[in-house]
Amino acid sequence: METFNFNPGPTALPREVLLRAQQELVNYQNTGLSILEMSHRSKAYQSIHENAQQSLRRFLNIPETHEILFLQGGASLQFTMVPMNLLKENQTASYILTGSWSQKAYKESLKIGKTEITASSEASGFTYIPAKSDWNKLDKDTGYLHLTSNNTIYGTQWQTFEELPDVPVVIDMSSDIGSRTVPWEKVALAYAGAQKNIGPAGATVVIIRKDILAETNTQLPAMLDYKIHSNKNSMHNTPPTYTIYLLGLTIEWMIEQGGLSEFINRSEQKSSLLYKAIDESDGFYSGHAEKSSRSQMNITFNLPNPELSESFLQGAEDEGFVGLSGHRSVGGCRASIYNGVDLASCERLVNYMEKFKKKHS
Amino acid sequence: METFNFNPGPTALPREVLLRAQQELVNYQNTGLSILEMSHRSKAYQSIHENAQQSLRRFLNIPETHEILFLQGGASLQFTMVPMNLLKENQTASYILTGSWSQKAYKESLKIGKTEITASSEASGFTYIPAKSDWNKLDKDTGYLHLTSNNTIYGTQWQTFEELPDVPVVIDMSSDIGSRTVPWEKVALAYAGAQKNIGPAGATVVIIRKDILAETNTQLPAMLDYKIHSNKNSMHNTPPTYTIYLLGLTIEWMIEQGGLSEFINRSEQKSSLLYKAIDESDGFYSGHAEKSSRSQMNITFNLPNPELSESFLQGAEDEGFVGLSGHRSVGGCRASIYNGVDLASCERLVNYMEKFKKKHS
Repeated sequence: METFNFNPGPTALPREVLLRAQQELVNYQNTGLSILEMSHRSKAYQSIHENAQQSLRRFLNIPETHEILFLQGGASLQFTMVPMNLLKENQTASYILTGSWSQKAYKESLKIGKTEITASSEASGFTYIPAKSDWNKLDKDTGYLHLTSNNTIYGTQWQTFEELPDVPVVIDMSSDIGSRTVPWEKVALAYAGAQKNIGPAGATVVIIRKDILAETNTQLPAMLDYKIHSNKNSMHNTPPTYTIYLLGLTIEWMIEQGGLSEFINRSEQKSSLLYKAIDESDGFYSGHAEKSSRSQMNITFNLPNPELSESFLQGAEDEGFVGLSGHRSVGGCRASIYNGVDLASCERLVNYMEKFKKKHS
Repeated sequence: METFNFNPGPTALPREVLLRAQQELVNYQNTGLSILEMSHRSKAYQSIHENAQQSLRRFLNIPETHEILFLQGGASLQFTMVPMNLLKENQTASYILTGSWSQKAYKESLKIGKTEITASSEASGFTYIPAKSDWNKLDKDTGYLHLTSNNTIYGTQWQTFEELPDVPVVIDMSSDIGSRTVPWEKVALAYAGAQKNIGPAGATVVIIRKDILAETNTQLPAMLDYKIHSNKNSMHNTPPTYTIYLLGLTIEWMIEQGGLSEFINRSEQKSSLLYKAIDESDGFYSGHAEKSSRSQMNITFNLPNPELSESFLQGAEDEGFVGLSGHRSVGGCRASIYNGVDLASCERLVNYMEKFKKKHS
């Protein structure tokens, strides 16, 4: 059966990437070996590793002021590594809470050092991104400000990075990396699990400003020390070689498709289409997020009652739609439309939404 | 060109596993999705995850007293997680140093708590495993004893686990898991990066006794806390789904081939063949490890002089042998013959060794 993949991550990869991976799986470019069997010290893998870094730099327009690391453990391990490496004695880490993931990041930072909440939309059910005018004041002891640029569960997103303050800013971009521009000069560190917009599960990208990296804490466990990973070009230990290969293929595919600007356009197109279906449904579908904070990656919506939601989801499954259930902490429905999801799948979903509405209203 | 893969890891995977992975890559069992695109919460992936755990339990005869975790970060992250979770206040961690990897584990433990060296073969260039009679005494404050069962760089291996002492024993089995029996009742925790004997790079297996797990330290960073991973069945965060799938396929293949006893036999056969070629070469080839400590996984040897070594390695490469260079800290040659390497490849290597010797002696 034809499927339309709206999984919240891991999620759709481009068909071209899957076909190429399949074709190269057993014998990579006539080396007589699968990439899965190659030493990470081999020339062939070294080239895959460096090409993936360079492609990512090109795709995201990352300047030479910043270094790219490939790590493991997902964004979740970064929740610990960020304060461990960046937070100095007498400094405070500041967190803006916009959903479950930023809450988790905040709680892990509390275990490492002094940590405070600068702003939070928890009281409203995380339906919006707090405006800068509502933040608590940052002061000279602020070690860094941490934010989560897109909130997969609630379907909200920071609309702009133009108002970032003049302290080191750390951004969890797991769910919108590669779908928006980043003013890198304002960003101390950005991190992302690969499994939403830029590849499969099993690799984490960390992009860190070199002057920040030079001043990270010392005497850390080696595997949790950015400087050690940097000194070994992310090969302090055996990297997840095949995952990095697939990440490289995915990014190369995005560059071939037209690069970042193309994927910004596509995200705009795809999300507009779905929000239009919600907004023009006369209240049959209602968005979870406030309009001014809507995500272009995760479209969260509800139906008039839980029975209709369930019927909608069951009908969707029968028609080949995958992954449309809302997160258990929010309920309802969620369409995750990362870079591997094409416009045609979104059109198909809109058709289904209209058909379902007609039948039930 | 036909290749013979003797890489020290990542290394050879069974051809049947690669072909099956290739066949299933784009559309997994008619789900219409690649495993690479599946949510880790999907039924299809849940089944892959649990089957991989069950297959590993069956293959290694792991009793229900022990739990299996799938983590990330390789053995290197375990160097930190082991003391963080297991070492209590007022306790000392004891390490037996038999090579570079146990040294690294020891150094990471020093960062976490009180740590001492119980025995070491460093003075001899790590050519042997210290006999129990030469260990410093363990006392009642010993939190655990850590050992590295096989030393990839030096080609030595613990010949038996029968003499393990009556303290919690932690074993880094990265390079011989799945090639020997383990008296699980004597083992508190065993860990292994997957990329040598049981799969590709990107997943770490931790096998921990449940009573030890119940008493691990609390208030740890979530991603470094065995109990949290255990409570979520290794899905506290997104696991490296595709790597775990491949690990499962590899273990199923080993079970189909005859299970652990079959791979014990094969390791014995393969290593005997190579050691015989060394021992019957009238000193042309000389083993690095003392005979009583020889590894069945990594056969390390030297030629009469560095020029001959280089010529041997160049000739080997020309004939399709991959990965035969010794580690830079030891030099010479090393044939790593993990479970994915077949007897025929070893016979081919022995033929090449004999031919090379005839030509140069």
